[in-house]
Amino acid sequence: MVDQFPDAYKAVWDFQGPWATSRHIPEVRFEGLTHPGIMATAPSAEMLAKWNKREGDLIATNPDRMPPLALPPEPEEAVLGSLPRSEWDRVGAEAARTAPPRENGGNQDIKNLTKGTRAFYPVFVDGANFSIGDLHFSQGDGEITFCGGIEMGGFMDLHVDLIKGGMETYGVAENAIFMPGRQDPQFSEWLSFPGTSVTLDGEQRYLDSHLSYQRAILHAIEYLSKFGYSKEQAYLLLGAAPIEGRLSSVVDIPNACSTVYIPTAIFDFDVRPPQGGPHQIDPGIGAPKAKDPVYG
Amino acid sequence: MVDQFPDAYKAVWDFQGPWATSRHIPEVRFEGLTHPGIMATAPSAEMLAKWNKREGDLIATNPDRMPPLALPPEPEEAVLGSLPRSEWDRVGAEAARTAPPRENGGNQDIKNLTKGTRAFYPVFVDGANFSIGDLHFSQGDGEITFCGGIEMGGFMDLHVDLIKGGMETYGVAENAIFMPGRQDPQFSEWLSFPGTSVTLDGEQRYLDSHLSYQRAILHAIEYLSKFGYSKEQAYLLLGAAPIEGRLSSVVDIPNACSTVYIPTAIFDFDVRPPQGGPHQIDPGIGAPKAKDPVYG
Amino acid sequence: MVDQFPDAYKAVWDFQGPWATSRHIPEVRFEGLTHPGIMATAPSAEMLAKWNKREGDLIATNPDRMPPLALPPEPEEAVLGSLPRSEWDRVGAEAARTAPPRENGGNQDIKNLTKGTRAFYPVFVDGANFSIGDLHFSQGDGEITFCGGIEMGGFMDLHVDLIKGGMETYGVAENAIFMPGRQDPQFSEWLSFPGTSVTLDGEQRYLDSHLSYQRAILHAIEYLSKFGYSKEQAYLLLGAAPIEGRLSSVVDIPNACSTVYIPTAIFDFDVRPPQGGPHQIDPGIGAPKAKDPVYG
Amino acid sequence: MVDQFPDAYKAVWDFQGPWATSRHIPEVRFEGLTHPGIMATAPSAEMLAKWNKREGDLIATNPDRMPPLALPPEPEEAVLGSLPRSEWDRVGAEAARTAPPRENGGNQDIKNLTKGTRAFYPVFVDGANFSIGDLHFSQGDGEITFCGGIEMGGFMDLHVDLIKGGMETYGVAENAIFMPGRQDPQFSEWLSFPGTSVTLDGEQRYLDSHLSYQRAILHAIEYLSKFGYSKEQAYLLLGAAPIEGRLSSVVDIPNACSTVYIPTAIFDFDVRPPQGGPHQIDPGIGAPKAKDPVYG
Repeated sequence: MVDQFPDAYKAVWDFQGPWATSRHIPEVRFEGLTHPGIMATAPSAEMLAKWNKREGDLIATNPDRMPPLALPPEPEEAVLGSLPRSEWDRVGAEAARTAPPRENGGNQDIKNLTKGTRAFYPVFVDGANFSIGDLHFSQGDGEITFCGGIEMGGFMDLHVDLIKGGMETYGVAENAIFMPGRQDPQFSEWLSFPGTSVTLDGEQRYLDSHLSYQRAILHAIEYLSKFGYSKEQAYLLLGAAPIEGRLSSVVDIPNACSTVYIPTAIFDFDVRPPQGGPHQIDPGIGAPKAKDPVYG
Repeated sequence: MVDQFPDAYKAVWDFQGPWATSRHIPEVRFEGLTHPGIMATAPSAEMLAKWNKREGDLIATNPDRMPPLALPPEPEEAVLGSLPRSEWDRVGAEAARTAPPRENGGNQDIKNLTKGTRAFYPVFVDGANFSIGDLHFSQGDGEITFCGGIEMGGFMDLHVDLIKGGMETYGVAENAIFMPGRQDPQFSEWLSFPGTSVTLDGEQRYLDSHLSYQRAILHAIEYLSKFGYSKEQAYLLLGAAPIEGRLSSVVDIPNACSTVYIPTAIFDFDVRPPQGGPHQIDPGIGAPKAKDPVYG
Repeated sequence: MVDQFPDAYKAVWDFQGPWATSRHIPEVRFEGLTHPGIMATAPSAEMLAKWNKREGDLIATNPDRMPPLALPPEPEEAVLGSLPRSEWDRVGAEAARTAPPRENGGNQDIKNLTKGTRAFYPVFVDGANFSIGDLHFSQGDGEITFCGGIEMGGFMDLHVDLIKGGMETYGVAENAIFMPGRQDPQFSEWLSFPGTSVTLDGEQRYLDSHLSYQRAILHAIEYLSKFGYSKEQAYLLLGAAPIEGRLSSVVDIPNACSTVYIPTAIFDFDVRPPQGGPHQIDPGIGAPKAKDPVYG
Repeated sequence: MVDQFPDAYKAVWDFQGPWATSRHIPEVRFEGLTHPGIMATAPSAEMLAKWNKREGDLIATNPDRMPPLALPPEPEEAVLGSLPRSEWDRVGAEAARTAPPRENGGNQDIKNLTKGTRAFYPVFVDGANFSIGDLHFSQGDGEITFCGGIEMGGFMDLHVDLIKGGMETYGVAENAIFMPGRQDPQFSEWLSFPGTSVTLDGEQRYLDSHLSYQRAILHAIEYLSKFGYSKEQAYLLLGAAPIEGRLSSVVDIPNACSTVYIPTAIFDFDVRPPQGGPHQIDPGIGAPKAKDPVYG
């Protein structure tokens, strides 16, 4: 979405119990789908080498691209904690960045890894070295604004069981699986926008679900703008609220069809298409531009 | 999925009221999410020309590819109904194939366009020329097996309202929107499999949500195979059952993260990972191979 | 409710696919929870004798009460089908009326016995003599208006399995059990009204859940009247719409607490208490009074 | 239920995040519906006098009954805090006991007054004197075991708005209303037991929803006992787990029909009636008898 929203914008969210509201996005209120963006076991040395090889190969196809295709190890700024200083050079040169999700779970940004979830991770090193981080109060599917899920500090109360031989028994050698909790906010009414894999410039792409989701989001932003939201406000809202992104069709060549589902109950007004035309919000102070551009 | 499942397989589904079971996929039972794969208004001549241009441009990048990148008009086999024969050549040469979804809706294969849904379509020609087709008894998100949603004959009871100026008022100039019905089968427990955009050969792709969904599906198939299903049985099941495909993260470079959610209640046995190991189904007569290969 | 609503009123409901609207109750629209009011196996001769004895004993405590405490067999108007005429006197004198639910299921008026439900009935005679009837398009918990569920003609598609020894194995010697379908309309937002077991005249009753539900309903009617509905309209609505009646507390002497839950999504307007005061509906033609009073 | 369960039994529940399990009730696990049993505004002096009059009148009809019909003010043990000692006699003689729910809310024991709920209370004195208490980790509809909801210490984070004239505007002069939160645990599969208003001794009662709910509960206990639970274990489970009690019919004379819905997902095993007969739990240490009997 970097072409449509090259600048960074920020919405401040206020929490009241489970509810979030924002002075920057008026007439909206929703409960948090509180979850960690990251949960992971540690990779083995072999797995780490595989990651660095395949991500390095991708970067090499266009090393000067901005934003980059992937992020290589970053020796200068790696946070290596209590590791002996003599090891810093070696480790900093090979330690994987935590940006992407991988075989060990990682930064999956799955909004439904909420309270009460049971997750099953493969184990690659003795002791597993399980870690968590990147706590979100809420986030829409895709975390489309790059860092627009509602970030927060916090702690997690976890319980761990070991299933001996579970990777072989359940076929989870290179992926995690999970069962989401039953306490996610429930919504019975949704407004849904499909998109297809044609670029804004009219170029046809082949079964590109990433693009079709982007187009679905842009359709939703266009719709919300008719109610008085600025496009930046609508974009920030869709990054933070419990919207669902679905892969509706992936086989109908050449167009993938993705859909975004917005729960109507998060709006203080009736957001459905009535005959009488859209309600007009008071845009208030709007979504402020941050000082520095971000990529994403 | 054509590389993993090059042959065509078939499962016969038996209906009993809202329930479907199959002699080819034992110990599974689910209610249908009955819906039309296709709902569309007719394109204007200008829009049709735009489609043929952009899809033709895509085909031209690799015209001999099998399967093809897109499907051009097919004059020989176009079904032109009562159109005067003198028009057949002209129309057959420009009539769009109904395979892909486009600005007018079309073959979106959205499993939630079910009973009680309200949909809003843009209108491009006088009278709209609204059409429906491709009825499915059920289908999983993505219709991953190409034609493995449960196809059926049937009829639909529709009601149409006209919202004058609605395309401008609600910003739906080139997309449909919809509000799904409230009578889809409800499930409170899901087993979820994430996937990332790395190919089976280990090649890293850049934020490819299509690939990450494919990998999520393959992880789910691997898991189900541990319960005694053949991979073909698991594949056919995921194409037909009310599974959900989600775009979980689209910004964590280089890996997109997609997830597939399988409702646990569709299985006659406990499909969760217990300590005691997976239940073993009786695979029965299995999923038979069809005579001819399909692409998809 | 006969004291509050001594006259009979009628609302005509129009169906459009799964949706119902009424010219007599404006600005409301809901999907049907289609179900049979009655499903039952036949009683044995011993069970029938037991019913007639206990219901007769109750009638005998106040035989002239209007409405009556219970309804005895009615020889004059019994519908005895193809039974030999020589048996009519005997059978008409002992055949149970189908008004109440009993050990064999019967007129339970359970709104969630919907499509996809699996029910388990005890069997008291050879062949079970299973019967169904009293089809409702929709009904609120309690069928509070006596016959105000939306009655309709129709047919049911049933499948029957026999569980040998099931009454003993599962302890269902004198009751049915069931598992409701998963396709009931879903609602995520409810407006709820509690009531306690104090009569309108201020008399305290002891843990009377029937009375506390009646008071909860009257509170809801009072609330809806502030939006412009007549009390008769509100009453008819609560008898027909998918409202839920709950036994919230049955132990806090002397007051039982019952609650009625109304789904907010059935209203075309925002029915929640906003600061700005209630929306005013156009009451339209209202709910007409029927010619004859009913009891209930 | 005091006749069926004259002794007191106790189950200890262990919490793990949102989950509860009990060493006394094996093979069961559920998330809490955390809520306060009591929320109330203070009554005016007139209202207090009305309560004491009507509850006193009820007691007077059978003053020696055990358990009593209602609980009068208790001067000896009233907790009067910082009130001047000179007032203790007067206040202790008229202060209402908090056992029952009344016009001001109070001990409603509504299990759905959970996180995210918005409640509207009438105000009877300056400043409202709003109070809360009786926190439950979980409780089934009815709190059937009298004090068998899972009691806990805790605190609540509340926000209060004042709606001027709201009692008149919304017709809530003598009752509270509320909108439950959207984060209650969701269940899509239930096992339901109807009951009717016939006593265990076979006596027919007239539309007694309290009795019909009791019979529904007893049917559920009978069913669960077939899986190896003692009746005391089943009884304690139904008091604590998120079961739903519904008023299914209140008009089909002479039998009220109440139903209890048990979510199947709270059991570690398949609790549905399969052909192969009920799974047998290991009853473990069972539910211990407490020293002293309770009434309820």
